Amino acid sequence: MFSLLQQARLQFKPQIPTVLQAVDETVLVPQPIHHHSSDQITERFPKTSGQQLLEIHLGSKSVSNALRVGVLLSGGQAPGGHNVISGLFDALKAFHPDSVLIGFYDGPSGVLTNKRVEITDKLLESYRNQGGFDIIGSSRTKIETEEQFLIAEKTVKENKLDGLVIVGGDDSNTNAAFLAEFFLSRGCPTRVIGVPKTIDGDLQSDLIEISFGFDTACKVYSETIGNLMRDCLSAKKYYYFIKLMGRSASHITLECALQTHPNLALISEEIAKEGKTLEGVVDSICDMVCTRSAKGKNYGVILVPEGVIEFIPEVRVLIEELNNIMSLKSSHHDAIDKEENKDTKIVMAAKLLSTAAQPCFLSLPKDIQAQLLIGRDPHGNVQVSKIETERMLMSMVKSKLKKRDERIKFDPISHFCGYEGRSALPSNFDSQYCYALGRVAAILIKGGATGYICYVNNLTKRVEKWEAGGVPLTQLMVLEKRHGETKPVVKKTLVDLEGNAFSQFHTQRAQWAVEDDYIAPGPIQFYGPPELTDGVPNLIQV
Amino acid sequence: MFSLLQQARLQFKPQIPTVLQAVDETVLVPQPIHHHSSDQITERFPKTSGQQLLEIHLGSKSVSNALRVGVLLSGGQAPGGHNVISGLFDALKAFHPDSVLIGFYDGPSGVLTNKRVEITDKLLESYRNQGGFDIIGSSRTKIETEEQFLIAEKTVKENKLDGLVIVGGDDSNTNAAFLAEFFLSRGCPTRVIGVPKTIDGDLQSDLIEISFGFDTACKVYSETIGNLMRDCLSAKKYYYFIKLMGRSASHITLECALQTHPNLALISEEIAKEGKTLEGVVDSICDMVCTRSAKGKNYGVILVPEGVIEFIPEVRVLIEELNNIMSLKSSHHDAIDKEENKDTKIVMAAKLLSTAAQPCFLSLPKDIQAQLLIGRDPHGNVQVSKIETERMLMSMVKSKLKKRDERIKFDPISHFCGYEGRSALPSNFDSQYCYALGRVAAILIKGGATGYICYVNNLTKRVEKWEAGGVPLTQLMVLEKRHGETKPVVKKTLVDLEGNAFSQFHTQRAQWAVEDDYIAPGPIQFYGPPELTDGVPNLIQV
Repeated sequence: MFSLLQQARLQFKPQIPTVLQAVDETVLVPQPIHHHSSDQITERFPKTSGQQLLEIHLGSKSVSNALRVGVLLSGGQAPGGHNVISGLFDALKAFHPDSVLIGFYDGPSGVLTNKRVEITDKLLESYRNQGGFDIIGSSRTKIETEEQFLIAEKTVKENKLDGLVIVGGDDSNTNAAFLAEFFLSRGCPTRVIGVPKTIDGDLQSDLIEISFGFDTACKVYSETIGNLMRDCLSAKKYYYFIKLMGRSASHITLECALQTHPNLALISEEIAKEGKTLEGVVDSICDMVCTRSAKGKNYGVILVPEGVIEFIPEVRVLIEELNNIMSLKSSHHDAIDKEENKDTKIVMAAKLLSTAAQPCFLSLPKDIQAQLLIGRDPHGNVQVSKIETERMLMSMVKSKLKKRDERIKFDPISHFCGYEGRSALPSNFDSQYCYALGRVAAILIKGGATGYICYVNNLTKRVEKWEAGGVPLTQLMVLEKRHGETKPVVKKTLVDLEGNAFSQFHTQRAQWAVEDDYIAPGPIQFYGPPELTDGVPNLIQV
Repeated sequence: MFSLLQQARLQFKPQIPTVLQAVDETVLVPQPIHHHSSDQITERFPKTSGQQLLEIHLGSKSVSNALRVGVLLSGGQAPGGHNVISGLFDALKAFHPDSVLIGFYDGPSGVLTNKRVEITDKLLESYRNQGGFDIIGSSRTKIETEEQFLIAEKTVKENKLDGLVIVGGDDSNTNAAFLAEFFLSRGCPTRVIGVPKTIDGDLQSDLIEISFGFDTACKVYSETIGNLMRDCLSAKKYYYFIKLMGRSASHITLECALQTHPNLALISEEIAKEGKTLEGVVDSICDMVCTRSAKGKNYGVILVPEGVIEFIPEVRVLIEELNNIMSLKSSHHDAIDKEENKDTKIVMAAKLLSTAAQPCFLSLPKDIQAQLLIGRDPHGNVQVSKIETERMLMSMVKSKLKKRDERIKFDPISHFCGYEGRSALPSNFDSQYCYALGRVAAILIKGGATGYICYVNNLTKRVEKWEAGGVPLTQLMVLEKRHGETKPVVKKTLVDLEGNAFSQFHTQRAQWAVEDDYIAPGPIQFYGPPELTDGVPNLIQV
């Protein structure tokens, strides 16, 4: 069922960048780019590395055959996914009314099982400008082995696909690059095109300004953060520890900080760079709390990226050592595992840790220590992701403050800004950006490009002025060691500590810590003055 | 600092009901009402009980002296508080430009300490249509003892107040009723007027359609719930257990259920009425999960009012018994308290419980058992409010499902819709409703009324048609036993299981359980078509 707002959004007509308006009048103009790919990448991608950037320009009208294209949504949802499909569909139909768009169900696995649906105008009708990925679903399956590539080839051949559009994050786009190379090497004519999706914002570069979904998610989170700040100012007695999504990078936290001005925001990348200890992080929070307390302010807001503790060097060491100690092969495993008394278990493990890891382990609250020893995954690995970082920090700050000064009032409340952000109704920005990305994918496929990822840039300008085209996927790749093997992968972009966004945050944060410079952006608006409805993430503005 | 939306909202001009537009042309028209007050209430309120309803009608222009009025905000925030003050201020100034509005800081305690500020147009400028209570703050202090009444009298005399407006929930309005009676009995001319505030919605009756803040809070929560539903539909692998505010009544949960159509919503009042056991509640969730699983749906959304476990009869008995066992006077207290081994502690306590309470205690997850024994308040009482009900239910459902059928996939995620709702930017409805309430308070004070609570009704109609006036506070009172003493108190209104809202929910919920009838209302809109911006809570529509 649709709410009134959802119904209204179904009717929303995304503005279209000028270069993408008449898709049958576009041409792909190759532009040389500096190839920074290593030899290893060139070797691995003999056919698709070294390709040029493709800019979409307006040209003269050209007649197109009907195209058959497949699309899949991969990984976690990001607001705007349905609009990528709409943009793609509308462009294919504009090329030729007999063009066909096939949606593969449940992500990459739909390609492996050939479970699919033809996307029709009728079907799309109920998904335009809506949140979620539910039109065809998604999954975290990967197409990455030779065997899977062969099955994928079979599927695209059976469906006579001219192109396959993979909407996904860094991993999915890595796989898209390999698949493109594989198809080319096999003489399979299906072009593979990636679309940059992830609310985490870690798929961006000088060639791709931002991934889609980031804008909406940050706006949803900033709405909540702003509300809790207002609560702080009124109740004057709580410290909110707000955990934000973003396991590998702190873009969301940084963006939300710029939107709302919290008293403190942890940026994982900075913590890693400075080699901060867990105690150091706790101390930095305590310092802020004490300074505010001296000013009579026993309230505040702290933003915590969900992945932060994995960026603390000593925690990394600790996790590694615990994984070794508790590995099924370890001689200690059985003894510790069998011990039923939690306290004894903890003492046993602590004794086995190095001097680099032991103090960190001993500084953790007891329930976290126990969790690290008990809650391991099927491979025996410590599940860092299960640790409720914000609650752990709350408890550690509380203990530490007690030692510093008993009289300091500290009443923390935790909040997790989670999946409500990734599945929200897309903002105007994401609606329009995604619709444009979909059109770009169609144009690239029509132009015969493969191994490319769509870009739409110049996003801080009016929509008409947005620029678009394709970046060779290999251009985003770096060599990384994963599971002991060096592999070319699409790079996850971390927060640039030399960049403008971080530097803006850095300049202002001392003031935010003590003053109440809070800003409440409020809920996303879809109607009204453009400055209220068409805002763009700070990260690309600064 | 203000966000763009906050700035835009500062400029918003609330529509004003026709009867409240020219405040100096209003008259108070007494209307007889059926007095259901008991003899004890009449005795306790010799001067203010038995007063008539006062309707505000338009009459001829009358000249007014300048009025001096005090206002305080009591208890938890509710969106719209600042607009009550704006409405009050604007009306007082319309009566006479020399009228003065004094805001008491930090709730009732400001009256006790005479800490105050004169509200000026300049000051109000930055608070119109904004969330929070921060213009003057709030607190949970009470003015309820004879001694406090005398201090309050001193304060209102020093400030030469014609009236004192108390913006609060049931408790604060109970105190307002006593204060009004006290002032009258002492010949103190200050009129006392209450304003119905609480996001919980439990201050409503046939005379007061709804308390303010409820609309905005439910819309904020429903936005989140709707987003998580969309997430369910896409990811198809999570069960969201969403806890909602509402300790004493489940109005918020019921309203959000009507707005979003969850697969299951617990209504505390129904559970109490049916005398359900905790196991029964867990079973009802398991039944739903199993039914959906049989249809291939291993995802869903469950709404849980935060106070639900206190409505389960056997849990009440358990808590009472634990409080006795663990009371400082109990002979068992020391032994259990000193025992360091959690498991032994639990066994010791369990042995002392009656057969009515023991099975319930034993059915609880171990960490909850421990929490009940350890986390007691300074009076030694079990802190039920600290129990994370949604997580407890998740864990109990998980264990139970395992016993029923190992193969059922059940991956629960908890979410708490908390203080972000009470401090949000007020919806158009709350902005306008509160502005009207403020004007009503001014008119009642000018008309010499005391011991009244403001009402604005007919709220499902266009704003012009809203009706307004005052209800004698004693009319909302009932006798209740609190701390062993029978006292007249303003009644907390629970969900009416015979009412239209519940019956609408009741009729549809079987379908919602199995089908995915989810609705995502999306974020509150302030611009655009009126049906998107001016929605009214379902609870007063049906």
